[in-house]
Amino acid sequence: MQKEKLLYEGKAKKLYQTNEKEVLWVEYKDDATAFNGEKKEVLHGKGKLNNEISSLLFQKLADTGIRSHFVKKLSATEQLVKQTTIVPLEVVVRNIVAGSLHKRTGIEEGTELNQAIVEFYYKDDDLGDPLINNDHIRILQAAEPEQVHNMREQALAVNKSLKKHFDDCGLLLVDFKLEFGTTADGELLLADEISPDTCRLWDKETREKFDKDLFRFGLGSLQDGYTEILKRLGGAVHG
Amino acid sequence: MQKEKLLYEGKAKKLYQTNEKEVLWVEYKDDATAFNGEKKEVLHGKGKLNNEISSLLFQKLADTGIRSHFVKKLSATEQLVKQTTIVPLEVVVRNIVAGSLHKRTGIEEGTELNQAIVEFYYKDDDLGDPLINNDHIRILQAAEPEQVHNMREQALAVNKSLKKHFDDCGLLLVDFKLEFGTTADGELLLADEISPDTCRLWDKETREKFDKDLFRFGLGSLQDGYTEILKRLGGAVHG
Ligand SMILES: Nc1ncnc2c1ncn2[C@@H]1O[C@H](COP(=O)(O)OP(=O)(O)O)[C@@H](O)[C@H]1O
Ligand SMILES: Nc1ncnc2c1ncn2[C@@H]1O[C@H](COP(=O)(O)OP(=O)(O)O)[C@@H](O)[C@H]1O
Ligand SMILES: [Mg+2]
Ligand SMILES: [Mg+2]
Repeated sequence: MQKEKLLYEGKAKKLYQTNEKEVLWVEYKDDATAFNGEKKEVLHGKGKLNNEISSLLFQKLADTGIRSHFVKKLSATEQLVKQTTIVPLEVVVRNIVAGSLHKRTGIEEGTELNQAIVEFYYKDDDLGDPLINNDHIRILQAAEPEQVHNMREQALAVNKSLKKHFDDCGLLLVDFKLEFGTTADGELLLADEISPDTCRLWDKETREKFDKDLFRFGLGSLQDGYTEILKRLGGAVHG
Repeated sequence: MQKEKLLYEGKAKKLYQTNEKEVLWVEYKDDATAFNGEKKEVLHGKGKLNNEISSLLFQKLADTGIRSHFVKKLSATEQLVKQTTIVPLEVVVRNIVAGSLHKRTGIEEGTELNQAIVEFYYKDDDLGDPLINNDHIRILQAAEPEQVHNMREQALAVNKSLKKHFDDCGLLLVDFKLEFGTTADGELLLADEISPDTCRLWDKETREKFDKDLFRFGLGSLQDGYTEILKRLGGAVHG
């Protein structure tokens, strides 16, 4: 497999074409950004941690029958994935109230929801990734109604699997963001990443935060938090 | 019928109990507010105009078989309505892109939607009346799923009726906000008001604005705009 031309560079990853059709080469970067790019820093080791954690989680999902774009881990910071056309929606699943859900509803942070909720945000940095409803998705032609239904079902299945997995590792899966894409043969496939950049993960007992909120709110070392998550997931921790 | 103790005073109306059970006495005020109360003014004659227009529109809806809390107009600024327990949701219907829908989606102002869309906002001034989805409605216990469905259907029926009616008067019904309440016998009933405070109405030909945006953005005399709407609806215009 050969890495070819750069297709996209986002805030956290670079995606390259390869010599194989429909296979992309992903490089996880050390850049940390928050608040729609307002806060920015290079955090050495972050790319490695996210690549490792994301690979482990996609593998875990595959083991429980949940398909994704993940093909295989290539190196400390690289993996191969299936190329998709990304649906311009961020699909958020929440088990516990935190962040914008607290601000939107007034429900106290830390409140456990007795059933997970799903939110769709329009993936558009200029608009600040706004919350949208099904009617907005329709007029934006962001996805077909059946695709929305399908993403919701897949997102809840991912939640069920990962919540259990994290729980077994002493972690609370508070909330997370997924992206989906359509493959060349029309499959709506889980894509992008699942990492502490895109999940809130708290210690089950103390509720200590180990995720990107460490960086967002300057609460402590991001790398220490992500390393703790990787350890608990049973991953290999490198210097 | 006797007016008794004041039940609520909102930004635009006062609601009093009456000597008849489940009937409220509404007084439309001259207060204009915008941007969640940040901008405030007393605009002489506004109460009269909104009471007149709201009464005409509720009557029009009744004529086309759409029930509401409206009982009858009492005086220039007063009407009788059925008492309800207000559902804490603002139900917005949109035919043309304006205001927050433009900001949320980036779709150009003035774009005609080929099918109306419905939005639910959580009626909470402290939270700034945020947009919410069905899952938020569930966790907030703001309404039951069947009620949400029912409000959506009623709102679309109101839209169909009013859009046609305004069109016949040379006006474009751009968007509007409804509130619903439940009566003592459990009916989910259209309540509150339908007025240029809660609708965007543009001239069909010139797209001149005749609604509260005149006040919001200091575009001209609110009373002149509301008077124009009342005239076109065939209502009696008083000094
Ligand atoms: N399998 C895939 N096929 C195509 N694009 C993908 C795939 N997985 C992720 N992407 C896209 O790669 C881009 C780079 O990722 P990232 O750096 O996280 O971007 P962002 O700054 O938008 O968060 C994003 O637009 C993401 O949606
Ligand atoms: N039929 C009704 N029964 C009970 N309350 C109602 C009814 N119609 C409207 N209301 C409520 O009356 C209050 C006063 O109205 P308004 O001045 O428009 O309030 P706001 O400042 O919330 O817009 C609002 O809370 C509104 O929801
Ligand atoms: Mg990203
Ligand atoms: Mg009101």
